[in-house]
Amino acid sequence: MSLEADRLQQMANAVRALSMDAVQAANSGHPGMPMGMADVATVLWTEYLKHDPAAPDWADRDRFVLSAGHGSMLIYSLLHLTGYARPTLQEIRDFRQLGSPCAGHPENFLLDGVEATTGPLGQGLAMAVGMAMAERHLNAVYGDPLVDHRTWVVAGDGCLMEGINHEAIGLAGHLKLGRLNVLWDDNNITIDGGVDLSSSEDVKARYLSAGWHVTECDGHDFGAIRKALDEAAADPRPSLVACKTVIGKGAPNKQGTSGVHGSPLGDAEVSAARETLGWEHAPFEVPEQVLSDWREAGTRGQSAHSEWKDRAAQHDTTGEFADRMAGKLPAMDDFDGALAEWLSGEQKVATRKASEMVLEKLTAMIPAMVGGSADLTGSNNTKTASTSAFTAQNYDGRYVYYGIREFGMAAAMNGMALHGGVIPYGGTFLIFSDYCRNAIRLAALQKVRSIFVLTHDSIGLGEDGPTHQPAEQVMSLRLIPNLNVYRPADLVETAECWKLALETPETPSAICLTRQGLPQVRSDNAMASGKGAYRLRAASAERKVILMATGSEVHLALECADKLEADGIGADVISMPCMELFEQQDEAYKADLLPNVPPEQILRVSIEAGVTLGWERYTMANGLNIGLDRFGASAPGDELFKHFGFTADAIVPKIMNKLNG
Amino acid sequence: MSLEADRLQQMANAVRALSMDAVQAANSGHPGMPMGMADVATVLWTEYLKHDPAAPDWADRDRFVLSAGHGSMLIYSLLHLTGYARPTLQEIRDFRQLGSPCAGHPENFLLDGVEATTGPLGQGLAMAVGMAMAERHLNAVYGDPLVDHRTWVVAGDGCLMEGINHEAIGLAGHLKLGRLNVLWDDNNITIDGGVDLSSSEDVKARYLSAGWHVTECDGHDFGAIRKALDEAAADPRPSLVACKTVIGKGAPNKQGTSGVHGSPLGDAEVSAARETLGWEHAPFEVPEQVLSDWREAGTRGQSAHSEWKDRAAQHDTTGEFADRMAGKLPAMDDFDGALAEWLSGEQKVATRKASEMVLEKLTAMIPAMVGGSADLTGSNNTKTASTSAFTAQNYDGRYVYYGIREFGMAAAMNGMALHGGVIPYGGTFLIFSDYCRNAIRLAALQKVRSIFVLTHDSIGLGEDGPTHQPAEQVMSLRLIPNLNVYRPADLVETAECWKLALETPETPSAICLTRQGLPQVRSDNAMASGKGAYRLRAASAERKVILMATGSEVHLALECADKLEADGIGADVISMPCMELFEQQDEAYKADLLPNVPPEQILRVSIEAGVTLGWERYTMANGLNIGLDRFGASAPGDELFKHFGFTADAIVPKIMNKLNG
Repeated sequence: MSLEADRLQQMANAVRALSMDAVQAANSGHPGMPMGMADVATVLWTEYLKHDPAAPDWADRDRFVLSAGHGSMLIYSLLHLTGYARPTLQEIRDFRQLGSPCAGHPENFLLDGVEATTGPLGQGLAMAVGMAMAERHLNAVYGDPLVDHRTWVVAGDGCLMEGINHEAIGLAGHLKLGRLNVLWDDNNITIDGGVDLSSSEDVKARYLSAGWHVTECDGHDFGAIRKALDEAAADPRPSLVACKTVIGKGAPNKQGTSGVHGSPLGDAEVSAARETLGWEHAPFEVPEQVLSDWREAGTRGQSAHSEWKDRAAQHDTTGEFADRMAGKLPAMDDFDGALAEWLSGEQKVATRKASEMVLEKLTAMIPAMVGGSADLTGSNNTKTASTSAFTAQNYDGRYVYYGIREFGMAAAMNGMALHGGVIPYGGTFLIFSDYCRNAIRLAALQKVRSIFVLTHDSIGLGEDGPTHQPAEQVMSLRLIPNLNVYRPADLVETAECWKLALETPETPSAICLTRQGLPQVRSDNAMASGKGAYRLRAASAERKVILMATGSEVHLALECADKLEADGIGADVISMPCMELFEQQDEAYKADLLPNVPPEQILRVSIEAGVTLGWERYTMANGLNIGLDRFGASAPGDELFKHFGFTADAIVPKIMNKLNG
Repeated sequence: MSLEADRLQQMANAVRALSMDAVQAANSGHPGMPMGMADVATVLWTEYLKHDPAAPDWADRDRFVLSAGHGSMLIYSLLHLTGYARPTLQEIRDFRQLGSPCAGHPENFLLDGVEATTGPLGQGLAMAVGMAMAERHLNAVYGDPLVDHRTWVVAGDGCLMEGINHEAIGLAGHLKLGRLNVLWDDNNITIDGGVDLSSSEDVKARYLSAGWHVTECDGHDFGAIRKALDEAAADPRPSLVACKTVIGKGAPNKQGTSGVHGSPLGDAEVSAARETLGWEHAPFEVPEQVLSDWREAGTRGQSAHSEWKDRAAQHDTTGEFADRMAGKLPAMDDFDGALAEWLSGEQKVATRKASEMVLEKLTAMIPAMVGGSADLTGSNNTKTASTSAFTAQNYDGRYVYYGIREFGMAAAMNGMALHGGVIPYGGTFLIFSDYCRNAIRLAALQKVRSIFVLTHDSIGLGEDGPTHQPAEQVMSLRLIPNLNVYRPADLVETAECWKLALETPETPSAICLTRQGLPQVRSDNAMASGKGAYRLRAASAERKVILMATGSEVHLALECADKLEADGIGADVISMPCMELFEQQDEAYKADLLPNVPPEQILRVSIEAGVTLGWERYTMANGLNIGLDRFGASAPGDELFKHFGFTADAIVPKIMNKLNG
């Protein structure tokens, strides 16, 4: 049942007014999009979106993603008007000010109802694809009574032009995600000017080619909007709704130009817009009738929510679904048993293979784990017996063939994690973390448990050469805040790192794994990786050297220590599978591993087959950093290690030089 | 004039045999693509490609880019067979071995005729777009007699699925690059299996939607291939030729499966393939007739080259075109004059604005400079009076509206630089270097002069918040080998950094610039930035502290020094606009700036509004690193600096603590 048009128009104009007023007050922000899409968003939020502002964590709510995140005042207005506890009007007044949850771009960790952190263009839509995948998967597992909702996206031309968008829509079309609907703010304007400055693409034909349903509407005609949304909702394919809008609609002198995209309207134009819109209210004032219409609309989902709760009580008697949505892990006894077994063994395996062995256990234990690879399944070793293919015909599958779409994969993983109920992991070569780096960053910023499986982690991959050999990638991932970067040394550490990755629900993980086989380096001290770094072997002779290494260089550090000890030089070996976790340890633990004595007394040496910048944090002045400060080369991996000096024969003399120097 | 089909087939089979034999000998590599595309490539290289193996640097040669770089044996075979000096047969025998130029993936710096380093999927095609842009631009400037060639690409499904491909074809279609022809190895196979595992895209419709011409052929029918190539060459739009092929064609038991994509065939299958192909020759043996047919084909371009040389002698009498293709810069007197003027001034400007002032000078002086931005022209300040828009109607324009396509832009820039005659620069926000990071890496690996203008370089950008605020990007770019990362402190340093960037033709540059205004910090010592770091101010009192800073934190370091000196504590201030250049200085210079004395004597402090990991290289043990080891927040920039402790009032007490601690 829809309100009469003029009352709906007033509601939409409230969004416009709040948006332009907030941007004006901040003297910073993007009024064009919220004003342009106010009518579409008003119809969507008052008549279509399934949500309950009183219960923003309702598992079966529709997900709404503002992919064009710069238009953040749109969602802040909608959340406030429909009656979410936050943002308050004061918080909207403080738009873009320190401490306000109304940040420049919507941030999922600041406000309920903001389902994803958006702004980096294209990623909102790509995360929405992941949400829609999670929805279909959970629907397949738990059925319609528990999971049956839509994912709505508002996207702009910027989103649609980005490469990641094309990866995302290719995936969505292939997987026939019919419950995903994208509302395209088709306003013909980008920051630089008209879209035709940089694009001649037939967007509708493009989406059709990806298997989407496409329709369009006048984005300022409520009836037309309803018709298009109905059509989108009905079509079994994912839908693109081209909403023809005027950017900055309501600002009479600036609307329809790039001038309203990213700048405040200015006081004069705000006044003019008030006049144009017939909005005679003070800044930030929403008249009673309009607010009460909005709040009334906000209660629309209460009964659906209530009915869902009844169904949940009936269908989720064990609480399994609720636990899963809450991200809880099952008991890990099976895993602990396997770890004990591996500790007592002596397996030489590549850590990517070790990861597969671990994943066999974990995916059998944890139904929430949904894996995949960007077309490197056999190389990333990400598929297990428990994970059949997730396809349009088989949404209960737990393995996604993402195709050659690394960025799209990483963003979809984030979307699944944000949706809840799924713990996504996905593989590519470590070098191609470059292709999806900003999605890894957004996982960290959003505090979600995405687990990136990054194999072929050094020159050890061999013949594929420098285009494929990571040199700077491990260290560069370490620079991303709130990301745990693991580089395990053997099967045991690989198992430990996987467990740690699962146990940090608010921190994503990058697990860097070798192509080549590695000897086992430890047979006791289960979960020693948990402190990020630990003394793998203590010096026998008087300690003169501390060797630190990660991953495939740990056994090399042990070899160096053997040689040094043979010469009567005591050498500790520290394995550091996760620098970030080590940083979190207390000073006593750190000082035990790395005593604060002058380098003349104990020489610190790092060994890692990657760039050295960063290792000085631990090796200090006059330490020794063994690494690769250049691009690699094409040759068998063992020859490259030799060629680039990663042998005990090459390293030990350097250490001796330092000791004697 | 074409050879009779059976002789042509033998020539194609020579490519197949060399490819499978080399992969088999290396026991590593990708036989499927070269064997599948051998027929298409043979027609292209013997009848269409304009080149002269005796003169691989012929400026007007067609460019051939193997975007599906894993099929590197295809191009190594073609180069050898058509008579390029390298690779020799021995070098092909040493495929993927240390020292052979026949690396796992084609590398432009190892072999003439390899126009681009490929392997990271999609980027070859995207670089080819840049080459085709450079061709049209130079054609517009110098005319048909000097520049009039095609760009050919061989791409696989992997290339076509990547997001960057969609950015690239969007740009190419918009710019109507009709002399770009992409030969798609349409074999329905990816690494994981059939393409239908991960994609349902209608590729032809997708290219049509981007403004391309599309045709197809049986990739094993010479007549059909010719017909399609003729059609592609004739059409004014960029062309996609879908070459229907059988991957691994000729290997009877494995062809048409993902098993031949990335693994050697094995001895038995190699034998079987010999039988199937009727190829009775020993491994690496090319029979005389076949080789002579190939060599004959390789001479096909000699007369065209000779005629071109005559035209060049007539049309490039000043040698301007030759100099430009050689990458030479004009005399920089105008620039030096401007720098002197700026030194004597006292301008407070944002360094992005400073960059624009510098670019006004440089683009007026250097016609080879072609700029652009990924839809942030007004924010990146990249457009100048000398650079009108480069459009399909105006190829002599020097400013590219790249659209919201950062990765496509960066790769296109690399392609322009590889083509020669163009010095590309392009802008985006520093945070979105994440979106194009692997193209920046490929610029470095390929040793080309791409200049990335990266504005909004810290929390100083303010209200846009953590999605847009670089924290780790400056340091993470520094990790890329052979990339100079500049972060200038004011107008003077910005000018110097630009000049340095232009003067390193084999090293790309990333210039990181502020959104916010910065005071001028230096008025003498022109080109001091050339050493990467320099003493901006020497201590007055006894030196107890060395402050190091970059960019927007240099003036802050000066403020800190003022306060310390006021307390009788001598403090040097070092500005470090380019860590990489500083690393290249001799030990004496480094020791002069950073004397090797214990931290008790001189405390070293770094100040940079980004992650601190890495700065320990210079601050050593017990130094002090002032930075931002977390994500930022949304608020006005000056408030954020205060909030996160980037003020003299916050920093000086920390220094005093250290000094007294």
